[in-house]
Amino acid sequence: MGKSRPMVQSDRESVKDILAAVGNFTADEIKTALELVDEWLASGEASGYLTYVLESGSDPFSIVGYMCFGEAPLTTGTYDLYWIAVDTKHHRGGFGKKLVRFAEEEIVRRGGRMLLIETSSLETYGATIKFYEGAGYEIAARIKDYYKPGDDKLIFYKRFSSG
Amino acid sequence: MGKSRPMVQSDRESVKDILAAVGNFTADEIKTALELVDEWLASGEASGYLTYVLESGSDPFSIVGYMCFGEAPLTTGTYDLYWIAVDTKHHRGGFGKKLVRFAEEEIVRRGGRMLLIETSSLETYGATIKFYEGAGYEIAARIKDYYKPGDDKLIFYKRFSSG
Repeated sequence: MGKSRPMVQSDRESVKDILAAVGNFTADEIKTALELVDEWLASGEASGYLTYVLESGSDPFSIVGYMCFGEAPLTTGTYDLYWIAVDTKHHRGGFGKKLVRFAEEEIVRRGGRMLLIETSSLETYGATIKFYEGAGYEIAARIKDYYKPGDDKLIFYKRFSSG
Repeated sequence: MGKSRPMVQSDRESVKDILAAVGNFTADEIKTALELVDEWLASGEASGYLTYVLESGSDPFSIVGYMCFGEAPLTTGTYDLYWIAVDTKHHRGGFGKKLVRFAEEEIVRRGGRMLLIETSSLETYGATIKFYEGAGYEIAARIKDYYKPGDDKLIFYKRFSSG
C-alpha cells in the first residue's frame, strides 16, 4: 500500500477528478474543497489547511485519495478534518481508513488533543457516518436543519489525550 | 438611540478600540476579528462577513458597537454571528440587544432560517451567555474542551421559521 505525502501542484488535477467522481459532493462543495487546496498550494502550512495525498502503491504520481485538516482557529490543539475523498475505483480498499489514521498520527505529532469531523445526516452520507463510527468517532453534537431543512450537521470527535 | 449601518473604512479605528477595551478578547481573537473586518472592507458582501456598526444617537461618526455575521458556507439560510462587541462605556445601555435584533431582522430579510452563535463556557463569558439566553437563544450543542482543556464551545441558536 502507498504512503501519504504533502500535496503538490501536479496532484491538483487528480484531486479534482477524485472529488468529482465521489458523487456525494455538490458543485458548490467541490468548489469550496478546491479553494482550500489552492490556499494550501499557495501558502503551505501558513494556510492552516494541511493537505496530504495518498499515493497508490506502485506509482508515486498516481493518487488514490486526499485529505485536508487543520487546527481550528482560536483553539489550542483542536483539529478539524475539512475534507477527505478516496478515488471511487479504490473504495473498500481501506484507503479511507489509512488517510484518517495518517491525519490522527500527524495531529498527535503536532500536539493536537482532538479531531472533529462534520458531516451531513442525509442518507447519502450513511456510508460516511458508518465509516467514522468504525474508525472510533463518536457524535459530539447534532445541529438540526443546519445545511438545509431536513439536512442536519453531525459533529463527530475523537480525543487523543485527556488534555 | 442610534442606528445600524454597514461599516466603512473610517470606522476601523473605533472598532479596533472597542474590541481592545472589551477585555474578554485575547490578542489572537482581536487579530482574527480585524482580519474579518478587513475582508469586509476590501470585498463587501462578497467576503461573506457582513459587518455593521451601531452609531451613537447624537454623532453618526461615533460608534458604540459593531457586529459581523454571514451565511455559513455550504448551508442554505443558516447564519453565524462571528463577532459582536459594544463599547465598554456603553455596556448596560441596551446596545448589544439592539445589534442582535438588527442582525436577526437583516438575516430574515435575506431569507435566513436560523442564527448560530458560538461562545466559550469560561466564567468570564458568563454575562455573554446570560445575554444570549435573555435574547431568546438556546444551546444547540456543547463541545467539551474545544478551545482548550476546561474551555468548552457552546453553540447557541435561534430559528426564524420552521423551514
